[in-house]
Amino acid sequence: MIDLHLIGIGTGNPDHLTRAAERAMQAADLILLPRKRADTTDLLDLRQTLCAAVAMPDTRVALFDLPERDEAAPYGAAVAAWHDAIAKAWADAIATHLPQGGRLALLVWGDPSLYDSSLRIAQRLGDDGMAMRVSVVPGITSLQALTAAHAIPLNTVGAPVTITTGRRLRERGWPEGVDTVAVMLDGGCAFETIDPVGITIWWGAYLGMAQQALAAGPLGEVGPTLRARRAALRATHGWIMDTYLLRRSPA
Amino acid sequence: MIDLHLIGIGTGNPDHLTRAAERAMQAADLILLPRKRADTTDLLDLRQTLCAAVAMPDTRVALFDLPERDEAAPYGAAVAAWHDAIAKAWADAIATHLPQGGRLALLVWGDPSLYDSSLRIAQRLGDDGMAMRVSVVPGITSLQALTAAHAIPLNTVGAPVTITTGRRLRERGWPEGVDTVAVMLDGGCAFETIDPVGITIWWGAYLGMAQQALAAGPLGEVGPTLRARRAALRATHGWIMDTYLLRRSPA
Ligand SMILES: C[S@@+](CC[C@H](N)C(=O)[O-])C[C@H]1O[C@@H](n2cnc3c(N)ncnc32)[C@H](O)[C@@H]1O
Ligand SMILES: C[S@@+](CC[C@H](N)C(=O)[O-])C[C@H]1O[C@@H](n2cnc3c(N)ncnc32)[C@H](O)[C@@H]1O
Repeated sequence: MIDLHLIGIGTGNPDHLTRAAERAMQAADLILLPRKRADTTDLLDLRQTLCAAVAMPDTRVALFDLPERDEAAPYGAAVAAWHDAIAKAWADAIATHLPQGGRLALLVWGDPSLYDSSLRIAQRLGDDGMAMRVSVVPGITSLQALTAAHAIPLNTVGAPVTITTGRRLRERGWPEGVDTVAVMLDGGCAFETIDPVGITIWWGAYLGMAQQALAAGPLGEVGPTLRARRAALRATHGWIMDTYLLRRSPA
Repeated sequence: MIDLHLIGIGTGNPDHLTRAAERAMQAADLILLPRKRADTTDLLDLRQTLCAAVAMPDTRVALFDLPERDEAAPYGAAVAAWHDAIAKAWADAIATHLPQGGRLALLVWGDPSLYDSSLRIAQRLGDDGMAMRVSVVPGITSLQALTAAHAIPLNTVGAPVTITTGRRLRERGWPEGVDTVAVMLDGGCAFETIDPVGITIWWGAYLGMAQQALAAGPLGEVGPTLRARRAALRATHGWIMDTYLLRRSPA
């Protein structure tokens, strides 16, 4: 029996760790950390730093190679195949490091509920017949790190908010029925595809981390500066993760 | 000069506290706790328990009476007047307890960005000429406590989510362009106003607390049980706070 704990760790700042996250890390028999082939070794380092920062006398830490997503394949199919491959990598690591079962912890960036595939991958292992109980420890999301860094509310009084992706903003435009849109997973600058009149942007990269970068103001003024800024930051750090909030003055 | 820290404390579970929240509580000169006249003394008790759980040798804790919102007045005007009254209560408490300035902490339920008025009230004090710097410490929201308790993702793969209020769901129906809706601030059972076909609900009350109550399943089956269940829970505990996620099968 595998007692799987998906532990939200916030966005790389050890101060984001909750007491529940620390306890779950300490109580684990094994923590599995993903090693990516890509340019995000910083993120592996951050996870290892977290493990070192949390006293864990009885916890083993093991690395596994994270399969890469086929960027060329159509999105839906590529994601499904990628999740299958990660499920297989987890199963192999479990067979190697926790053959008798026990408490397995995975450290999930931000919160496990938000644009993260760990819950879906765990589901696949369950469907494949692995005896498994899944628990989730919530963590501070990058959106919360964004609103905290700018000291702004997510919503205006009593009003709704849509959380979406860069891809979707680009393909479908401004979501209907809301004046506030939070955008994640934007590999490009999808905000450039939106009419900027009356819209304010609050942008943040490397939120919660030493490299944190922020910008805010009218989209028409700030937007055009961000493409070059992102490129420069990516060149400096080797990778970038950013997210932003767009708010339009109510009609 | 007032150095105001709005500290997200999660939803009443001391295990939701982040390291940053603990540090900010410990570093405060004064923590102000709201005392409500209504039936939510449990929540004041919870905040006092948190203060007791976090070692704070140099921190004073003071109570202030939280003004009540005029439930009879039109929503927008009532909220504005209420925020003005709270701003005045903060200013009075600051004049009494922190006349020379210093680090002031307020413990905000969940995360200060999400359907919370503290940032707007701080803004009012700044507008009224109080010298103030505002910092936000993010906290686990009730939505994250909900998805964690049910071990479910907030979004489906790459898809958007709208966070809205019970009032808005009731008045406007299902938000356009999304298959997942998170509902907060629902004083009634706004999900009853929605056609339940093809919709799943994940519901939670007192999330993160000892009284935590959960329900999940097809809205057509679970929905009709919730009105009585809410009433019974409210009768038992004297108050209720609940939130829920609705997801429809994509068309
Ligand atoms: C796969 S999603 C994971 C989100 C994560 N589960 C969370 O709760 O924030 C990755 C996206 O989150 C956002 N993100 C994550 N960490 C970030 C950070 N430190 N700064 C800015 N954006 C971040 C970016 O939009 C990125 O494309
Ligand atoms: C004024 S809003 C504050 C939200 C808070 N800032 C957060 O981050 O969760 C209050 C609403 O949050 C939800 N809520 C807060 N705490 C909750 C809890 N422990 N269980 C269920 N719902 C909760 C309910 O929908 C409630 O009406």
